[in-house]
Amino acid sequence: MSPFLAEVIGTAFIITLGDGVVANVVLNNSKGNQGGWIVITMGWAMAVFIGVYCAGQYSGAHLNPAVTVALAVKGDFSWALVPAYIAAQLLGAMLGALIVWLCYKKQFDATSDVAGKLGVFCTIPAIRNTGYNFLTELLATFVFVLAILFITKPATGIGSLDALPVAFVVLAIGLSLGGPTGYAINPARDLGPRLMHALLPISGKGSSDWSYAWVPIAGPLLGGIAAALIFTFI
Amino acid sequence: MSPFLAEVIGTAFIITLGDGVVANVVLNNSKGNQGGWIVITMGWAMAVFIGVYCAGQYSGAHLNPAVTVALAVKGDFSWALVPAYIAAQLLGAMLGALIVWLCYKKQFDATSDVAGKLGVFCTIPAIRNTGYNFLTELLATFVFVLAILFITKPATGIGSLDALPVAFVVLAIGLSLGGPTGYAINPARDLGPRLMHALLPISGKGSSDWSYAWVPIAGPLLGGIAAALIFTFI
Amino acid sequence: MSPFLAEVIGTAFIITLGDGVVANVVLNNSKGNQGGWIVITMGWAMAVFIGVYCAGQYSGAHLNPAVTVALAVKGDFSWALVPAYIAAQLLGAMLGALIVWLCYKKQFDATSDVAGKLGVFCTIPAIRNTGYNFLTELLATFVFVLAILFITKPATGIGSLDALPVAFVVLAIGLSLGGPTGYAINPARDLGPRLMHALLPISGKGSSDWSYAWVPIAGPLLGGIAAALIFTFI
Amino acid sequence: MSPFLAEVIGTAFIITLGDGVVANVVLNNSKGNQGGWIVITMGWAMAVFIGVYCAGQYSGAHLNPAVTVALAVKGDFSWALVPAYIAAQLLGAMLGALIVWLCYKKQFDATSDVAGKLGVFCTIPAIRNTGYNFLTELLATFVFVLAILFITKPATGIGSLDALPVAFVVLAIGLSLGGPTGYAINPARDLGPRLMHALLPISGKGSSDWSYAWVPIAGPLLGGIAAALIFTFI
Repeated sequence: MSPFLAEVIGTAFIITLGDGVVANVVLNNSKGNQGGWIVITMGWAMAVFIGVYCAGQYSGAHLNPAVTVALAVKGDFSWALVPAYIAAQLLGAMLGALIVWLCYKKQFDATSDVAGKLGVFCTIPAIRNTGYNFLTELLATFVFVLAILFITKPATGIGSLDALPVAFVVLAIGLSLGGPTGYAINPARDLGPRLMHALLPISGKGSSDWSYAWVPIAGPLLGGIAAALIFTFI
Repeated sequence: MSPFLAEVIGTAFIITLGDGVVANVVLNNSKGNQGGWIVITMGWAMAVFIGVYCAGQYSGAHLNPAVTVALAVKGDFSWALVPAYIAAQLLGAMLGALIVWLCYKKQFDATSDVAGKLGVFCTIPAIRNTGYNFLTELLATFVFVLAILFITKPATGIGSLDALPVAFVVLAIGLSLGGPTGYAINPARDLGPRLMHALLPISGKGSSDWSYAWVPIAGPLLGGIAAALIFTFI
Repeated sequence: MSPFLAEVIGTAFIITLGDGVVANVVLNNSKGNQGGWIVITMGWAMAVFIGVYCAGQYSGAHLNPAVTVALAVKGDFSWALVPAYIAAQLLGAMLGALIVWLCYKKQFDATSDVAGKLGVFCTIPAIRNTGYNFLTELLATFVFVLAILFITKPATGIGSLDALPVAFVVLAIGLSLGGPTGYAINPARDLGPRLMHALLPISGKGSSDWSYAWVPIAGPLLGGIAAALIFTFI
Repeated sequence: MSPFLAEVIGTAFIITLGDGVVANVVLNNSKGNQGGWIVITMGWAMAVFIGVYCAGQYSGAHLNPAVTVALAVKGDFSWALVPAYIAAQLLGAMLGALIVWLCYKKQFDATSDVAGKLGVFCTIPAIRNTGYNFLTELLATFVFVLAILFITKPATGIGSLDALPVAFVVLAIGLSLGGPTGYAINPARDLGPRLMHALLPISGKGSSDWSYAWVPIAGPLLGGIAAALIFTFI
């Protein structure tokens, strides 16, 4: 399997299972409705476990532009491959969001809360404040990528055997720093599904909230770069 | 231990512990009553962990007709053994449902909700819609079996050491795509206990909902076959 | 460290951390109050993880008379050592209950519910019915010990590396079959703390419910023996 | 990376992710608000997993003065290095608390409960009673450090591969013995963030509760020393 395809499939696993858990908890008439924060965070952690486990041996399992760029800044990944990796991650994220919408079609129909429907696809801050939302995404991704760099092997990236510690890092970030912004910590995780929210004929959908869209892109990218620089320094 | 017996025992572990957690959460006067979706999904994940751990070295731990058929389609498993494996899985599932009924006999007596009692045995969709319920089971099993194929060794199937990643896949699917239909993703898991619901003298039981029974059989089988074809293609 | 001392310490770990989680959830003015079934079951699972991890290399980490007797029946453990192992397990369980009472002294004082206070120490059935309570403990321990026998090495018992699968078995049993009786599945786990409930000057305590005490002793012992016989047979 | 820097970074990971989960659950307008004890305890366990995983190969991952002193008492760690290790742990804890405050700035602004705001930083007993609070911290840390000593290698301390069992010990202690005092079990975890609570311009903050501050310092240190002595004896 080519690295490009592995990044598509790995990221599709993450978003299918990650956006899926939000749908399960947020949408009406779903068996996991009101399942709580432990369900959300365990769902995303297991989603990343599977994405990394399956893609690890083929692409180094970045599955996240903030990781790809951080590894390039650190010198462990070729800048020439960065655009293709990010495109694959976006494509995989869009594919995952499509699968979630198909699985939960009747639940979307049964839910009138437009913010909840958007929240299945992409992140919405708990308190909207551009500066602090940006800072939270930056710091959360800084902590996330710094921990990931301790796990990553310079030669091969993130392997299948690293799936468990990486999943635990995602679990920790979600439990701990996910409260203010819903922890995008991954530009593809937010932008890909947001595009699908705009494109898909979701019943009774509201705005795709494009004014916020740059925050979970720029914050994670800068946080990842900062982590790569600090890690190299120490 | 013969592969046939290992499939019986492994699937019996899964259904004893999987249907058991539903009984614990759904039936009245049970200590786990109203324990929430995290209890349900962790229960099924640990159930599969134990089934795979114990059966892995003897049968390749399919424990699921959708997995058996997918491995046969992929060419890793002999079609001649498929009927015996599926029969063993059904037998194990029926045995597991019997144990749960015996353990929770007094709780069944104390519960009047007929849908809850049926739900201990087999799946019931959150919103009944044949087309979308079928699609959800197909897609959830597609994602499930695709991930399993990344874990399976072509020569020996799923070994005991694979119990943890397999359990995490089951946990992820339940947390994320389990909301609309209760994630059968395994024809034996649904049909075996449904037969027991029909056969056992459960106090105050209602219909065994046979009109729905084909959905969690056909959806998972087709989803597993699709995963095998896609996996072979890539 | 002698096997006897390892069984004392390992069982003390289990009861300190296992009875501790019940105290945390059940007693008033405790930070985990009303934490739910996932807290109870994860607490006991992690308790067993630590007990097995620490005792594994010294005693084979039985930590449970039902396991000790089952291994003796299977022929993997000398009958001559059984009494000393069971005495050590009881002693460790009593020590653990003492530590829990000291840690939660003020919470015991602040709680008036006598059943809750007893429930910190030992099991109480959700619906009292001697026959079915006995059957549930027998079947739950049968499933528990059968799974444990797949993990145990005949020569050395349960090693430190087996702590994770053993903990997952305990988690699964608690989530799934723990609802009717609170899953003693271990005579020492129930009798040792029940003795401490009778002996300690717990403020406002009620009866130690001795009429039920034989159920979580006899049920687990018979279930364990049945598992050993079935395992040997297959 | 020097051991001193590793202790700073490892402890900063713990407090960022540990105090972070308390902020998420306790502060208003946070997505994890009212997430329950399982969220709190899983958050701290994953926080310690990451701290130990990252610092393990560089410093032996003490990340806790009670562990550092216990290892020195046991003779596995030089007393000459103790002050620098403790200073690094305090510095890391203060850094972590700063990151949490920055991430949750708007949630702190939206919360009026002064005890909740203090509780993000340091521990507050559920029932204030100096003697029993001290005893609980002493006993909980005794159990914690005793289990840690079974995991630690005398030559190298706690390595990255020990991150999972250590995290499970932290999870167990939190679930089980964390109810009365909020399980500091680490003087740096409590004192460092308490200092930051006093220093930072937190909106509408109350007292830093200095009269209690000695309990989560002295209790854990004595408990750790007791564990080292008992472990050496057995």
